[in-house]
Amino acid sequence: MEFKLALTHDSEIPLYRQVFAQIASKIRSGELARGERLPATRELAGQLGLNRTTISAAYEMLEAEGLIAGQVGRGSFVTGERTSGVVDWGALLERTETPLASLSGGFGKDVISFVMSRPSRALFPLDEVRATCATVLARADLADILQLGSPSGYEPLRRHLLEEARRQDLASPGDDLIITNGCQQALDLIGRVLLRPGDTVAVEDPVYTGLKNLLGGMDARLVGIPVGAEGLDVAHLERVLERERPRFLVVTSNFQNPTGATMPLAARLGLLEAAGAAGVPVVENDAYGELRYSGAPLPAIKQLDHHGGTVLLRSFSKVSFPGLRVGWAVGPKPLMDRLRQAKEAADLHTDQLSQAVLLEFAESGRLEAHRARVLAAGAERLAATLDACRQYLPPGTRWTRPEGGMNVWVRLPEPLDAGELLSRAQKEGVAYLPSRYFTVSRLEPGALRLSFAGLPPDQIRAGIAILGRIVSGEIEATSRSFEPVPAMV
Amino acid sequence: MEFKLALTHDSEIPLYRQVFAQIASKIRSGELARGERLPATRELAGQLGLNRTTISAAYEMLEAEGLIAGQVGRGSFVTGERTSGVVDWGALLERTETPLASLSGGFGKDVISFVMSRPSRALFPLDEVRATCATVLARADLADILQLGSPSGYEPLRRHLLEEARRQDLASPGDDLIITNGCQQALDLIGRVLLRPGDTVAVEDPVYTGLKNLLGGMDARLVGIPVGAEGLDVAHLERVLERERPRFLVVTSNFQNPTGATMPLAARLGLLEAAGAAGVPVVENDAYGELRYSGAPLPAIKQLDHHGGTVLLRSFSKVSFPGLRVGWAVGPKPLMDRLRQAKEAADLHTDQLSQAVLLEFAESGRLEAHRARVLAAGAERLAATLDACRQYLPPGTRWTRPEGGMNVWVRLPEPLDAGELLSRAQKEGVAYLPSRYFTVSRLEPGALRLSFAGLPPDQIRAGIAILGRIVSGEIEATSRSFEPVPAMV
Repeated sequence: MEFKLALTHDSEIPLYRQVFAQIASKIRSGELARGERLPATRELAGQLGLNRTTISAAYEMLEAEGLIAGQVGRGSFVTGERTSGVVDWGALLERTETPLASLSGGFGKDVISFVMSRPSRALFPLDEVRATCATVLARADLADILQLGSPSGYEPLRRHLLEEARRQDLASPGDDLIITNGCQQALDLIGRVLLRPGDTVAVEDPVYTGLKNLLGGMDARLVGIPVGAEGLDVAHLERVLERERPRFLVVTSNFQNPTGATMPLAARLGLLEAAGAAGVPVVENDAYGELRYSGAPLPAIKQLDHHGGTVLLRSFSKVSFPGLRVGWAVGPKPLMDRLRQAKEAADLHTDQLSQAVLLEFAESGRLEAHRARVLAAGAERLAATLDACRQYLPPGTRWTRPEGGMNVWVRLPEPLDAGELLSRAQKEGVAYLPSRYFTVSRLEPGALRLSFAGLPPDQIRAGIAILGRIVSGEIEATSRSFEPVPAMV
Repeated sequence: MEFKLALTHDSEIPLYRQVFAQIASKIRSGELARGERLPATRELAGQLGLNRTTISAAYEMLEAEGLIAGQVGRGSFVTGERTSGVVDWGALLERTETPLASLSGGFGKDVISFVMSRPSRALFPLDEVRATCATVLARADLADILQLGSPSGYEPLRRHLLEEARRQDLASPGDDLIITNGCQQALDLIGRVLLRPGDTVAVEDPVYTGLKNLLGGMDARLVGIPVGAEGLDVAHLERVLERERPRFLVVTSNFQNPTGATMPLAARLGLLEAAGAAGVPVVENDAYGELRYSGAPLPAIKQLDHHGGTVLLRSFSKVSFPGLRVGWAVGPKPLMDRLRQAKEAADLHTDQLSQAVLLEFAESGRLEAHRARVLAAGAERLAATLDACRQYLPPGTRWTRPEGGMNVWVRLPEPLDAGELLSRAQKEGVAYLPSRYFTVSRLEPGALRLSFAGLPPDQIRAGIAILGRIVSGEIEATSRSFEPVPAMV
């Protein structure tokens, strides 16, 4: 192609800009059609008697304007200018927007953070993880791990977990098991197969933020069942099940997040009776069940249900490594078959390297040894938390006394608002999540969650001491401002 | 508790059954209340003067009936019998059921299988994977990998991919990048944030099964745009965009699954023009783009779009290891922000061990070396496929001639039905996917997909030879049965 450009060598406008402007005008006028190839920079430089860098600079400007596109080894070609229309992301995304509480951001690095309900990084047995990986990597079946797998999960792990569940009476002969990316994905898959927008789901109130956000994003209607010291209020549940007939109920039998509450046996049986009578499936979210620091373990709701109405969710995340995203769901085969389809649609299957590593971690006995250390540390941290609450929190403050898990729920004396106190707490070096992240319909402005498992005891004590000082100061300030005014007589 | 049981020692009914029957009756009558603890087997055996194994056998029967539950170290307690109600899974699951084509099952192990569009297991460089993992595991930041991560992805990998995308003009300053569990999850997340049930989505016809199933499961209405040798029919697309205003369009610019078709530059630009004019976002699913065996690469649609209406999906799955579930989406920030929220709700974040391993695999140069081997093998396998089609498939058969990817689309002469031929093909030792897995609205009963990348050339030739024999035989049989009948005059 011969390029005719009228260039003025003594102009104030640099040559590269002149080249740019004239080619741009040819493209905009349609003289240069979309898809047409431009001469190579060297060629055009030769034709015009210009330096090649001049042409390169002009082409770069054209590219920046979106008029041409360069392709390595193929030169540049005309992409034209779109004549009309752009995508209005704001309008497109608005329709499905749901206000989500995000846990990220807002908490500085130097703050003692009770924000995340996750295990302590310092307890990760790195050398044992290394040895475990080395074993897995040395195996002949490494290629199977790297190849596309099954939506049900890495079969050796799936079999291991199903056999374990059968030994523990957690799986009946009519049950099946599917591997998920942690409990979170199991909850998601259950929502996908059971919910349509507007459906009702019964959940705990307060409830795990991730569940609240997930179901909110699915346009589900949440009905909260109050959680007390003994877990879910079963009498309340019965009325809700009767009146609302929710699509399903999600319950945390052990060390509920955020309250730490555990349901006693009678409540578990009552819940099953009520759910069965209403024909409502029970989703037992048991991420924390294996983190019992004291007291005797209770049978899972799944274990007590002989009528196939319960699905149990468990995970490696809390007891070992949340960065490896492996959990599982065990329950009635018809549901599991549909979860498997939903899993295939969602992401084909769970990452297989982590599944193989966690299986080896379990089978080698390292998981159990690690769990023992996690339990010892957890017991110490829980004790530090409860001690510090006793020591530093002012009278009128109440808190739960869990026997395991990662969370204690603190209720400040009225009329304090834990959300309002947060920015001051952060400034003074302590962070937590106020109740608004967890509440469904019963607002508890004075409540907050302390996730203690990730912090060493001395930091727990220091953090709660700060919190206590702030709360005490606030009570004092409040009582001054609420001084009784003499009656006007 | 003193247990009064009336046992008959000389009865024909064994003692353990008598113990079982009488306790069962006490539970059913309510005499033994739910939650009540039974005596330990040793204790009850002592009270009744029976052997402990007799009591154990009776307890096992009670447990099997769901009347009691045993807890290790805590004895057994009454769980009662649920008085009413069970969950009707069939009814609950029916409402959201969608007929899903499943790829699993039905193909024996001795069959030459063209079924799966996945890389060759034999090409996995196991020792290089081992070395890569060893490097990652030796690092000081291993604990960060094991700890809970970010919904955006493992930050070092995210940064690496975003910088690469910027270098390749695939990301503009207003773009962001999020890590997903392969392209499949990126498609899922996009559906979650943009779709409500009943919404319309424009897709290729035929289209990737996993996308068809995913959108079907979301109750989306699919409008198929015909795919020819030059990819998506842009004139047809224009009419559909105008008429239907779909929520978005999913397009595979390179080596489309199942046809292998690649869109020429003019078609890419035309598509962008049409989508922009209609204000419809473009989802460019580019899982296969890096697997070009011949011909010059074309700019991605994302690269050509200077108006922020395109999101590009890529993955490590096809070019390296699908068992490690890592892909990514790069596109306009408002969309990415919402995808991140959806990702957090779906499964918190992508597995971090695989993200770290794939980053190291890329940064060490091993990915590029592996890709070179995959390209060499792929070129050979594609050539073997096309040669064998020429050599063995009877006249009247047509097939696509891709320059990369993993799939060739074969159209048998009318009136043959590739679905009907499949069982015979499997019996004779070859398997493929017939068109029904891929078609949206244009039925092509004669078409089938040959996924060649996982098979060595000799197996490809042997498999297509078998297929050719079957098709030739079928044509002969069909022409006999369709012999013209003399006109009745």
